[in-house]
Amino acid sequence: MTLPRIGVTLGDPGGVGPEVALNSLLHSPDIANAAWILFGDSRLIGAEARRLGLSPSPAPWSPDAPPRGGLFLNDIPAPGAGSVRGRDDRANGEAAFRFFDAAVAAAREGRLEGLVTAPVSKTGWAMAGLPWRGHTEFLEHLYPGAVMSFWSGPLKVALLSHHLPLREALGKVRKEALLALLRTLNRSLSGLAGAPSEFLVAGLNPHAGEAGLLGIEEREEIGPAVAAACREGIRAAGPFPPDTVFLRARERKEAMVVAMYHDQGLIAFKLEAFASGVNVTLGLPFVRTSPDHGTAFDIAGRGVADPRSMTEALNLALRLASGRA
Amino acid sequence: MTLPRIGVTLGDPGGVGPEVALNSLLHSPDIANAAWILFGDSRLIGAEARRLGLSPSPAPWSPDAPPRGGLFLNDIPAPGAGSVRGRDDRANGEAAFRFFDAAVAAAREGRLEGLVTAPVSKTGWAMAGLPWRGHTEFLEHLYPGAVMSFWSGPLKVALLSHHLPLREALGKVRKEALLALLRTLNRSLSGLAGAPSEFLVAGLNPHAGEAGLLGIEEREEIGPAVAAACREGIRAAGPFPPDTVFLRARERKEAMVVAMYHDQGLIAFKLEAFASGVNVTLGLPFVRTSPDHGTAFDIAGRGVADPRSMTEALNLALRLASGRA
Repeated sequence: MTLPRIGVTLGDPGGVGPEVALNSLLHSPDIANAAWILFGDSRLIGAEARRLGLSPSPAPWSPDAPPRGGLFLNDIPAPGAGSVRGRDDRANGEAAFRFFDAAVAAAREGRLEGLVTAPVSKTGWAMAGLPWRGHTEFLEHLYPGAVMSFWSGPLKVALLSHHLPLREALGKVRKEALLALLRTLNRSLSGLAGAPSEFLVAGLNPHAGEAGLLGIEEREEIGPAVAAACREGIRAAGPFPPDTVFLRARERKEAMVVAMYHDQGLIAFKLEAFASGVNVTLGLPFVRTSPDHGTAFDIAGRGVADPRSMTEALNLALRLASGRA
Repeated sequence: MTLPRIGVTLGDPGGVGPEVALNSLLHSPDIANAAWILFGDSRLIGAEARRLGLSPSPAPWSPDAPPRGGLFLNDIPAPGAGSVRGRDDRANGEAAFRFFDAAVAAAREGRLEGLVTAPVSKTGWAMAGLPWRGHTEFLEHLYPGAVMSFWSGPLKVALLSHHLPLREALGKVRKEALLALLRTLNRSLSGLAGAPSEFLVAGLNPHAGEAGLLGIEEREEIGPAVAAACREGIRAAGPFPPDTVFLRARERKEAMVVAMYHDQGLIAFKLEAFASGVNVTLGLPFVRTSPDHGTAFDIAGRGVADPRSMTEALNLALRLASGRA
């Protein structure tokens, strides 16, 4: 079996990204099970490693060489980055984007099976003049069918829409969009060991509309999309009442909840998996995961950032990418 | 201190209501700390007790006598009720309503400080020709400012609106309505031992609208209502991002989350407190609690219903009503 190649971007140099990336990678028991390629500035990586008492010795990455297990470096010099810590900064925003952009380019060229992104600052990106609000928005720009999903031991959740005012999100609850989402989920996950294979679709309204008394979207949009997906052989079910579908999913390892809007999914997910959740973007030609936390500027540089979510993101990228290498 | 008088309604005779009511009451260590008055048909109560191996001996209730601790009975004959079990039935629906109606009438006359209601069937009520969808809707008809709230050890949640299509619920997120709700909560709970005293108000949109980028209700309605409440001395804060406000509240015993719509509150609450949650109606001149489950027709009559939620409902009614007796 060929080893998967997994890019790891450093994130915003002023946040906890470099710390959790290095801490997780250098303590990973899976370091030999993939080619892990750091996308970042070698100077920043060296400084962060010294601060953490770690001694990484990544080999330079040769994208055309056959993949070997271990840690590699794709050095992306980012002059001016890293001098500011613990707050938003233009140079850090610019650097974080360049690391990410280079990794995405490599993945698009088929040189990476997976990508793990440490957190960036939306504000930092805006200060650097970038039009995207974050990783996911950039990926959606490249791949309009991209799907945001959230994974943890007890719960997996995919979102029909994410960063929209709730009023606008209601307008996205349409049969065609939901069917497309179910097809993307099914295509992205089928055959992947340990990935969910059954999609529990939430309703939009209280009690899933209670036969039309409390809303019509279940009858007119969600129900028909689930039925159409089932006819295509997708294991979809619902619509279920939004306030119990997560209880149902929590008991089933193979289940993923399909949520109709951002908070429907994330209220449940954050309660269940605050420190260990992983963000997974599906519907791309490569696997992309990231920890479910931000730059945590308030604790950056103190060596106290919890690496669990990053570690889970690496593990999950490895599991999902191994099916693709 | 005068003992509080707490009415307990049997609920639908075909569901688990009579079982959990009797099981909880007759095993309660607090039986002497209130006058507990069963509102139900003595024949049904006797039959249920025999089935459970219990021997209640409630004294007939004399509303005008000074309250003594113990179990009392307000016998409400319900001919025809109880012959059907485990499914919706007209006579059971009619009986359940009569028990409830009599208890509410006693509470309105000032003869009860608290009321605990075992579950009824909405469909049973509809079959009996009743226009209300359940206890809460009946109480809202009598007291338009009534507020639905949900209590458990880790989490307390109040709802700005409940059984409405989500699209309509958005239209209810208005400054005046939210301020009225905060006043009701503050008035109902202030001075009650162990009751929440701090109100964490959720936003409506992802990330609480992110300074207007993801929605305007936080800026135009919710924020101003919170500010106005604070000026009146109410301990309110927010709006907080909907997907983290419950994590914040979970750490604070004195906090109650004010949710903007049904599922925002209940997704969180049901994940945290499925078997032990209590429904509390506030803004009434008496305390009303109920277990957070339905008639559970599938297990009715088998003696296996989990009485924890009912027990919590009795405990909470006692705690809250003790401040009023």
